[in-house]
Amino acid sequence: MAEKLENCSRLCIHTMTTKPWTLREAIDGYVQEGVPAITVWRQHLEPFGPKEAGKMLRDSGLQVVSLCRGGFFPATSGTAREAARNDNRRAIDEAAEIGAPLIVLVCGAAPGIPLPEARQQIIDGIAAVLPHAQAAGVKLAIEPLHPMYADTRSAVNTLEQANNMVVALGSKMVGVTVDVYHVWWDANLEGEIRRAGESIFSFHVCDWRTPTRDFLNDRGLMGEGCIEIRKIRAWVERAGFRGPIEVEIFSDELWSQDQALLVRRIKNAYLRHV
Amino acid sequence: MAEKLENCSRLCIHTMTTKPWTLREAIDGYVQEGVPAITVWRQHLEPFGPKEAGKMLRDSGLQVVSLCRGGFFPATSGTAREAARNDNRRAIDEAAEIGAPLIVLVCGAAPGIPLPEARQQIIDGIAAVLPHAQAAGVKLAIEPLHPMYADTRSAVNTLEQANNMVVALGSKMVGVTVDVYHVWWDANLEGEIRRAGESIFSFHVCDWRTPTRDFLNDRGLMGEGCIEIRKIRAWVERAGFRGPIEVEIFSDELWSQDQALLVRRIKNAYLRHV
Repeated sequence: MAEKLENCSRLCIHTMTTKPWTLREAIDGYVQEGVPAITVWRQHLEPFGPKEAGKMLRDSGLQVVSLCRGGFFPATSGTAREAARNDNRRAIDEAAEIGAPLIVLVCGAAPGIPLPEARQQIIDGIAAVLPHAQAAGVKLAIEPLHPMYADTRSAVNTLEQANNMVVALGSKMVGVTVDVYHVWWDANLEGEIRRAGESIFSFHVCDWRTPTRDFLNDRGLMGEGCIEIRKIRAWVERAGFRGPIEVEIFSDELWSQDQALLVRRIKNAYLRHV
Repeated sequence: MAEKLENCSRLCIHTMTTKPWTLREAIDGYVQEGVPAITVWRQHLEPFGPKEAGKMLRDSGLQVVSLCRGGFFPATSGTAREAARNDNRRAIDEAAEIGAPLIVLVCGAAPGIPLPEARQQIIDGIAAVLPHAQAAGVKLAIEPLHPMYADTRSAVNTLEQANNMVVALGSKMVGVTVDVYHVWWDANLEGEIRRAGESIFSFHVCDWRTPTRDFLNDRGLMGEGCIEIRKIRAWVERAGFRGPIEVEIFSDELWSQDQALLVRRIKNAYLRHV
């Protein structure tokens, strides 16, 4: 088991965690509470544009951890697959412009595409945009998503699969994201985290509520659920990861509350349960 | 890919699929439509009792495929774990009395119990009731449940885990249930089905709807979703399984409709999509 975290020096918050806030409000709200780092979602970036957002972020002093999200490579037509690749190339440009060294990939899936085919399209899609990422100096992290998203969001559903893809792609620019929400149930998790080693590019935390009332937007604050977050943190740290710990929570309940108060609750939950 | 099924000779329906029907109505409704086999849920058994139900089933000529369900072994106290084992022993007696050669185990989980501990409690629980099952001549099938149920329903979430437990328990009376709903997303499924081989004791079908509107009761009729059911059937048959194909659908939508019509829709969906 890892030691308790003594302060918030590694804390990062995703703009989606405080979804009602604009990027401007999120930056100010995080700085106000001494949160040192931010992961920017594209929907929060869009109203400002990457140039203006980049300036805001640099002026704030916040560390930009990653841009969320690229991916969604599988599609039934070649035209749609090429459009997805172009969108990923745009995301890479945006990441470079706001100073994000990493893009998290939600790799995609579609009910009409058999999973093995979707998985191959994902590998091909990442390979196709990789030169663009290399040129921009932006890394790509494959995030395995919970199997309950295998129909429409990601055909990559275990860390084992993500690790296999990293091996297949064979580039130092491609790694994985470990999000406890997606992988906590996996009996092979400890071993696959060890195997991932230095290719763990990012680490996301939240909690699994019982009962979970919505497939997408009912994640819990750390400590509100059953995930052994600290144990999983110990595993990623033993594998060599020492980067930011990113709080990514989608929750209609938390979004309906005062977001400044939510940031304070996140800090408390982070110190107690991560 | 397997050949299409030519008739309904292997079709079995779970009483939970026609939940609004009593066991009496289910027996009559299945016989009426020429469905040759039934899996009985304990909540449908309870109002009649196993003796009376056994007589009804024998008189009907239906093949009794299994009793659903045993399991739920993990608990925070030794007393509660012993109560769970006793309940499983009662289920074994009921299965023997209604002529069911098999009990399907939904193994259990609890938010307060770490998964590795829950998994050990499951193995210990099965081992504890195994002599009773052997004496009664009733087999036990470990059913891996979808990872979205890892908090409260089952800490066994992949066929790999179930296969490992079968190996650990080392008895011909213990095998696995392959339910497409729970395992369709798994990249290792084909290999683990091959590995399971003769320990595949039963095979359940339904479909994964997009979007799925409820964690428990929004399964689809075969063909309404994205699961490659026929491909998975080919895998279990290649592994040696030639038993009944059980339709197990929990659906508030389907339960609200005419159940006799539902049985006819099941037969059509079975012939077209399984």
